[in-house]
Amino acid sequence: MTDSALDLKNRESFTAWTSATIRYSDLDPNGHVNNGAINELFEDGRVRFRNDNLVKLPGSFLTGFVLAKFSVEYYLPIFYPGTVEIGTTIQRIGRTSYGLGQSIFADGKCAAAAEVITVLLDPETKKSMPLPDALRETLEKFQPQAR
Amino acid sequence: MTDSALDLKNRESFTAWTSATIRYSDLDPNGHVNNGAINELFEDGRVRFRNDNLVKLPGSFLTGFVLAKFSVEYYLPIFYPGTVEIGTTIQRIGRTSYGLGQSIFADGKCAAAAEVITVLLDPETKKSMPLPDALRETLEKFQPQAR
Amino acid sequence: MTDSALDLKNRESFTAWTSATIRYSDLDPNGHVNNGAINELFEDGRVRFRNDNLVKLPGSFLTGFVLAKFSVEYYLPIFYPGTVEIGTTIQRIGRTSYGLGQSIFADGKCAAAAEVITVLLDPETKKSMPLPDALRETLEKFQPQAR
Amino acid sequence: MTDSALDLKNRESFTAWTSATIRYSDLDPNGHVNNGAINELFEDGRVRFRNDNLVKLPGSFLTGFVLAKFSVEYYLPIFYPGTVEIGTTIQRIGRTSYGLGQSIFADGKCAAAAEVITVLLDPETKKSMPLPDALRETLEKFQPQAR
Repeated sequence: MTDSALDLKNRESFTAWTSATIRYSDLDPNGHVNNGAINELFEDGRVRFRNDNLVKLPGSFLTGFVLAKFSVEYYLPIFYPGTVEIGTTIQRIGRTSYGLGQSIFADGKCAAAAEVITVLLDPETKKSMPLPDALRETLEKFQPQAR
Repeated sequence: MTDSALDLKNRESFTAWTSATIRYSDLDPNGHVNNGAINELFEDGRVRFRNDNLVKLPGSFLTGFVLAKFSVEYYLPIFYPGTVEIGTTIQRIGRTSYGLGQSIFADGKCAAAAEVITVLLDPETKKSMPLPDALRETLEKFQPQAR
Repeated sequence: MTDSALDLKNRESFTAWTSATIRYSDLDPNGHVNNGAINELFEDGRVRFRNDNLVKLPGSFLTGFVLAKFSVEYYLPIFYPGTVEIGTTIQRIGRTSYGLGQSIFADGKCAAAAEVITVLLDPETKKSMPLPDALRETLEKFQPQAR
Repeated sequence: MTDSALDLKNRESFTAWTSATIRYSDLDPNGHVNNGAINELFEDGRVRFRNDNLVKLPGSFLTGFVLAKFSVEYYLPIFYPGTVEIGTTIQRIGRTSYGLGQSIFADGKCAAAAEVITVLLDPETKKSMPLPDALRETLEKFQPQAR
């Protein structure tokens, strides 16, 4: 992926991890985990990152975030049954948005990598608004260079 | 459930176990794991029971099985995030079909129980046909009284 | 199904109808619509029945309903692409619960039939409570014999 | 989106259309259609484009295609119940891959747009291989400028 200096195939790029089990219903007719299920796994990693690290922040601004862009590259098929690991990291912190990088590792190999942009909207005007300082400081802790 | 002597709320009734992680996408607008996701979890337990215990049997008869009936009772909401345990047992072995009992346990409590009937069809005539002896003997080992 | 006088394979039994399109993601590895997707279609028919006919009733009791039992028989495979019709009817009206009957018709044939019991819980005590008269009267209009 | 001259918010950009119904199970806890369901709808549009236009071509090369990249921008929430239209077009035809553009329109407005790259792999070596001429000629007919 060209819009980031991070190597999303490298486990060292990630600062938060979760795991998930593959289900039979994730398979499509060719016997691989389908793209929709892969995208669900990425979403699950993001929500758990948010719940674990951001919801304790003051203010109820979290409900103002919307997913603006989701971009994924698929490298290897994922099989059933099994467990995958989902790595999440903060790639960019902008004025009104931030970018996450994510990868799914199956059998120790990067099967798919995603870049996600999430934007903070003013609940009343529905226009983008600056990230609160407390959120910005927390996000910075999850940038790989911060470790 | 009235058509079985087994108590599906009791962990002792189950002879095979798997576990699965809950996903954010399993939630419906009221914040509980939705019924469709619960049914996916039951299916996952059945497929893994089959793959672990039945596919090694001689013959390729497994492809002839179809799900004829699925009946589920919902007792408690399931929340996110978390891991559930799925217990599976053999309740009945008929001439051309067998019945499974299943329960999902979340936080140690039975959240839902299901009864499932699966029938063996002749691949050519699409009519029900008798269970092979090797399958019948394997299924008997997973009846609770057999332990 | 034995616990109802209604023939759920007969279109005449249904008093409310919706339709839905099949998606590629509904298919499982054998190329049929999987049971989870079929159950989603039944749920969709129930929610639309509720939204179309019950939410206009006085009181906010609808949030007190929970799905207590879902039982489905699968008769024929459903293929992709295509559109299915979902018929819904009221089978039984009890003191604190009511029962729906549903069928999915694909290519004019009944592919699956379901029976559903939904119970009204007191929001505070979480114990079952009697159905309000306004709800009972509305439900009666959707019993087949009432037409 | 910067890597295409096509305006994916404009219906005129699309050369193939399908429609799909929203399901209650598509909703997430905030009452909007969730991103996973949106991605399923895009996949459905792609598969139907392929089945309608490409499977009649000589050779069985279709099974050699894999999804390499999927990128989506979300513009507006999608609500339940309702029907959406999915537009699909060919954006780029490369040597061993081609790119599709897709948008989902709800209530006449573009709710999300996606760019997809699909690559042809040699079934034996699993390395990319040139698109067959018959496929290339068919894809060209679905480029907007070709109309």
